Parts: sequence; C-alpha cells; structure tokens
Amino acid sequence: MLQSELKFRRDKIRVYMAQQGIDAALITCNVNLLYTAGCIYSGYLYLPLHSPAHLFVKRPHNMQGEFVHSIRKPEQIPELLKETGLPVPQKLMLEGDELPYTEYNRLAVLFPEATVVNGTPLIRQARSVKTALEIEMFRRAAAAHARAYEQIPSVYRPGMTDREFSIEIERLMRLEGCLGIFRVFGQSMEIFMGSVLSGDNAAVPSPYDFALGGEGLDPSLPGGINGKLLQEGQSVMVDIGGNFNGYMCDMTRVFSIGKLPEEAYAAHQVCLEIQDKVTSLARPGAVCEDLYQAAIDLVSQAGFADKFMGISQQARFIGRGIGLQINEAPVLAPRIKQELEPGMVFALEPKIVLPKIGAVGIENSFAVTKEGVEKLTHCPEEIISLG
Amino acid sequence: MLQSELKFRRDKIRVYMAQQGIDAALITCNVNLLYTAGCIYSGYLYLPLHSPAHLFVKRPHNMQGEFVHSIRKPEQIPELLKETGLPVPQKLMLEGDELPYTEYNRLAVLFPEATVVNGTPLIRQARSVKTALEIEMFRRAAAAHARAYEQIPSVYRPGMTDREFSIEIERLMRLEGCLGIFRVFGQSMEIFMGSVLSGDNAAVPSPYDFALGGEGLDPSLPGGINGKLLQEGQSVMVDIGGNFNGYMCDMTRVFSIGKLPEEAYAAHQVCLEIQDKVTSLARPGAVCEDLYQAAIDLVSQAGFADKFMGISQQARFIGRGIGLQINEAPVLAPRIKQELEPGMVFALEPKIVLPKIGAVGIENSFAVTKEGVEKLTHCPEEIISLG
Repeated sequence: MLQSELKFRRDKIRVYMAQQGIDAALITCNVNLLYTAGCIYSGYLYLPLHSPAHLFVKRPHNMQGEFVHSIRKPEQIPELLKETGLPVPQKLMLEGDELPYTEYNRLAVLFPEATVVNGTPLIRQARSVKTALEIEMFRRAAAAHARAYEQIPSVYRPGMTDREFSIEIERLMRLEGCLGIFRVFGQSMEIFMGSVLSGDNAAVPSPYDFALGGEGLDPSLPGGINGKLLQEGQSVMVDIGGNFNGYMCDMTRVFSIGKLPEEAYAAHQVCLEIQDKVTSLARPGAVCEDLYQAAIDLVSQAGFADKFMGISQQARFIGRGIGLQINEAPVLAPRIKQELEPGMVFALEPKIVLPKIGAVGIENSFAVTKEGVEKLTHCPEEIISLG
Repeated sequence: MLQSELKFRRDKIRVYMAQQGIDAALITCNVNLLYTAGCIYSGYLYLPLHSPAHLFVKRPHNMQGEFVHSIRKPEQIPELLKETGLPVPQKLMLEGDELPYTEYNRLAVLFPEATVVNGTPLIRQARSVKTALEIEMFRRAAAAHARAYEQIPSVYRPGMTDREFSIEIERLMRLEGCLGIFRVFGQSMEIFMGSVLSGDNAAVPSPYDFALGGEGLDPSLPGGINGKLLQEGQSVMVDIGGNFNGYMCDMTRVFSIGKLPEEAYAAHQVCLEIQDKVTSLARPGAVCEDLYQAAIDLVSQAGFADKFMGISQQARFIGRGIGLQINEAPVLAPRIKQELEPGMVFALEPKIVLPKIGAVGIENSFAVTKEGVEKLTHCPEEIISLG
C-alpha cells in the first residue's frame, strides 16, 4: 500500500491523539494494524505523535523496512525505542475495548511512567471517516458482491433446503473473490459468511447484535440457516457479507419461492421507501437519531412497526458504519446524536419480518459525499421470484 | 443438552476454583458459555462454588429456566444475586485472557469487595479434559469430516487454481454439515475455513501461530490459498477445519498433481512414522515435551529437520489440544512439562515443507484413553494422486 495513504491514516489518528494530550499509541489488534500498517502481522505498531511510526514484528520473520524491528516479545520494545532516540511516552493509548485484560496490562507495564488510556474509541473515530482509497476499495468490493448476487437465481433448485441454497450462494461469493472471513467488533460477536433466512426462521431471535437472527444449524452457532426446506410462499432473505479486500461491503436482497402474499410486496415497498427517505436526508450534518426516526415514522404510518427489524425481538437500529469491521461508527439508532461526515460509509438495512412468510426489505452500502450519499451496491432491488 | 452433563462440567471448574480459594466465577465469553450452559447467549453465567449456577441473559429475550434472569445490563447482576440470597463473592474470577480490558473492569467493579482474579487458565484447564459426551461429539465430527475428505478427488479438475479447488472442498465440507466458523483462542488469531497449500505457497511464513502459513489472496487475510494454478509435480495439502457441532476436529491430508519427486514420498513417510512413534508414546502420564522431542529426533535422523513445520519460519510445536477452540491445552512443544490425561483430545500434525513441491505430512485428531490414544479421524493417509 502507498506510504502516503498510511501516513494520512496515521495522521488522522494523531489529530485525535493531540486533542486528548496523548503522545503515543501502541497498536496490536489486527484491524488496527491493517489500517495503520497496511498489512496484518503479529506484533505492534508504535505511533508517536511527532515522529514516524515504528513496527515491532514477531511474525512473519521476514518483514523489512526502515522502521521495522524484529522482536520475540513486547518487553523488548522500550529498549528498542530508547535506541532510536524516541522519548518515553507520557500519555500512552492502548486498544482497551479490544485487547484482552491480561494483554493490556502486559503492555501497560512496559511504560511504568506513562498514564495509559483506552484508545479504541479514538481509533474507531478515525476509521469511521474513510479515505478516497478506502471508498474505492468499497466500490470494487461492491461490484464483486453484485456480480455474485446476480447469479443467485441460477443456483436455486426446487426442493432445496435453506442450507443447500446458502452453500451454493457462499460458493458464488467465493468464486467472485470473497475472502470469507467476516470481522466484527465486540468479543462476543461472531458470524460465518452471513445469513440466508426464510419463513419463520427469520423471526427467531438472536443472541448476537445483528439486525435479524435465525435458529442456526446447531446450538454452538445460533444464527442463520436451520436446514428447513424452502417452501412455496416463503421469502428468502440473502445477507452474505462482501469481504473481497478487507472492507466489509454489506448488501441484502430478497427472493421468493413462487409468489408471496400481497402483504409481503407491500412491506418490501415500505422498506424501499424508507431507504429512499433516509438516503434523501443523509448528508454531512444529518444526525443519526433523526435518520432512525424518519424510518420509524414511515414504518409506523405503513402499519408495520411491530414487525420492523424483527418481531418478538426487534433490533434498535437501521444501519451502522462499515469498514474493516462490519459494525463501525456511526450507528443509525435512537439517542445517537452523531452527525454524518463526508467519507463515512454505512450500511442501511430496513427489514420487516412477516410471520410464516419470512423477511423482506433491503440493505445497501452507502458512502457519504459532500452533498448526500453515493450508493455503492448496485443490484436489482425488487423481490425476485425463484420458482 | 443434559443438565447432568452441564453440572459435571461446572463441577470440574469448581474443583479448580476450590483449590485456589475462588468462591465464584462470572463467565461471558461464547465458548465458555457454550461449555457451561450448553448454548451461546448474550449475557453471563454466575457460577458459585457451593450453589447452582445462575444465567443472566440479555439476548435472546426468550430464554427460560429456573435460574434464568433477564437483564438489560450487567450492573443489574449484584442486586439480582442478593434477591436470590446468594452471598457476595470474596474472590471472583473473570475471563482475563479473553475479555477486553474495559469489559473486564466493568464487571470487576460490580463486586467492589471481591478480589478479582484471571480465571481463563483455570477454565481452559477444565476444558482440556473432555467428558465422554464431548469425545462422542468429536467422533461424530470426525466421521463427517472424513466423509467430506473422501470426496475431495471427485472435485478436482486439471487446470484449477488452489482457490478454485479450495472452494469446492469448502462446499463438500458444508454439504456434510460443517458449520464453517472456526473458533480460535487469542485475540489476534483468525482463519477462514482452513488452508489448502500447494507448491512454494506452503513455505510462505504466516503472521498467525498456526503450523503453516501461505500467502493468502489479499494482505487483509495473509494465510492459505494465493490463487496460483495447481501444477504437475506439486503437493496439495488440505487442512480444512471440521467444526460440525462446536468441536473443532482437525485433519490434514495430502494430494498430488500427478507424480511427485521421490523425496516427497520419503518425507511423507517420515511424518507417518512420527505419527506412529508419538501415538505409541502418548498415554496418561506422557510428558508433552518428550513427545515433541521424539518427533524431532525422528525427523532429524531422517534429514528433514530443516524443513519440518516450515522452512524459513518453523512452527515450534507438533500438536495441540482441540475442543471448542482449535488451540486448547495441552501443547506438544518444547519445555511443556504438562502430562497427558485420559480425556484430553489433541491434533497431531507432523508436516514437512519441500521447496517447489509443497507440504507433505499428516494431521489426525486423537483422544487420550486410559492406556493410550484413540484415533478419531479415519481416512486414507497416503498421498493421493489427483491427475
């Protein structure tokens, strides 16, 4: 990756550090290394406020560069910093919301004279506004994502289970270059490639903080497909994550087995109208909770409020930032006063769950521009009949 | 899951707690909830030394049971415990190696009078010795894993890339019931479904602490397949994780594109001999470092020591415990004095990397019995020619 891009990203973090009087950061979590160093390695990136970053690398052993130091353990870092002439940090930030407790403490004691603070919110704030290159990465991912989704009808066969259908969609995604892995913020969050929800499985509440749930195939992974037959009159909501280059593109489309009851098309149309409404309001300065409220107003007028984002358990958001993780800032949810800024990228996913039928609705990824938003994920949005 | 099984598991943890004077544990990480509650939920399991466990559940909202409490946030737990008449803990353990720093501190302050200690090593110790039911789960996973691997030759087509071949193998695994997700201990460890390594890609060092590496398709996920054509004279090492029910069965098999140079068959045979040697020594009381040393002695005599477990970067272990995560205790590595116990389950993976050819060797999963080991993964072990 271009050094200028990496320097730009590090400087974004430095601006926030300066505001909080932090004079150095020690970064080690994969997504934050990917963001600041352009690659994933086992080790640390030391980011001083006023000097170039230094990379301390445990593995792979063959990383090279001007500011790259090979180490066996983090306890070597203070001495190596001293040799480079860098001052001891006075106020150091570590990734407190991501690093395990014992790892955080192990790193904190390396700098006994420093005040150590949690840097995760600050790094996530910097990451929430994407660079031009990052938005271009999203555009490429979205194009590949759409190429896979356009082939979905071709892999459906009558009599399939949701599991069999999902496996063929996963294969399409992989053939288009999807890396598979799906990075999520939060230690208890996990998901395989995404979810395919049909019929009443779409209403099964989830332990995870995703928009919808699903029973899953096994208690050890309670989400998504449950192995049931896809049946006439059911919707099939496909929400498979589009990680083609590290950036988590998100897109949901709805298919039907034969024809659905009229209510389903009406509810789907409401979700498309919510998308239109929210994206017409979304621009720099728009407040997250206002966008959420606009969606709630529309879905309430349409009479679907009790089925919006789930039935018995309803998710309390309509979208959230995406980036190197699938759940970044900002969150389009109640009581979130944050304003949109140019360069933010978010997924908007108004969804309605109908008993016996399944879920309908839409999800697209959008980048905030100077005047409004740019839709990244282009793919037909109506309900497509499979049978 | 049977309540008696769950009680048995919780009592295993309680034995270690008692030894360390710990009178309660507050558990919240997914794998530890799965172990002690039999399912994954968003919330907490409070495990007192002398009373039944209580479950505090944020999501899903519909969990029910005698000791199940619905909560919105962990700050409600102390009051609810008081209402049940449970005493305040004096020495409480939290998952210190797994919980993020800020989450650990948030939970620790709920019990201001308690001494709070890191319970991760203790829980991992309890989990390292499997129950009869857990070993039966492994047997079932291993059978499904083998059914998928036996079909691998049927999906090979000449002219495939490693990526195309891997995608078809992943599909076979999914069709046999593989859940896909691959749980790993350690915040910086991550992997998609496993790896397929061919030719010189098998020698590319990894940032992750797995046996072998591979370049990967993108810097954002540096491991495994790199999209190159599978070529005549190359080995193809398939190491896809067998998570069919939460238990991470591990198995590696080697295929060849046409015929390999004689050296490859010789090296493969050495790995099979290492497997025979180590499993003949493995029994209750056998010391991990001795098993490792037996492997090193054999591979050194055979002249492959410099290519064992990698070339430029060599992994310093030949196997490790498997369970709800792919890297549990014990580790078969230098300086590990731990003794095997009946019920431990481990993957043994002697592998040799040959320049230009690729990796050869074997990996199987074994359960430690009273007298020796039981092989769980039954599938032909010779190099199978694909083209």
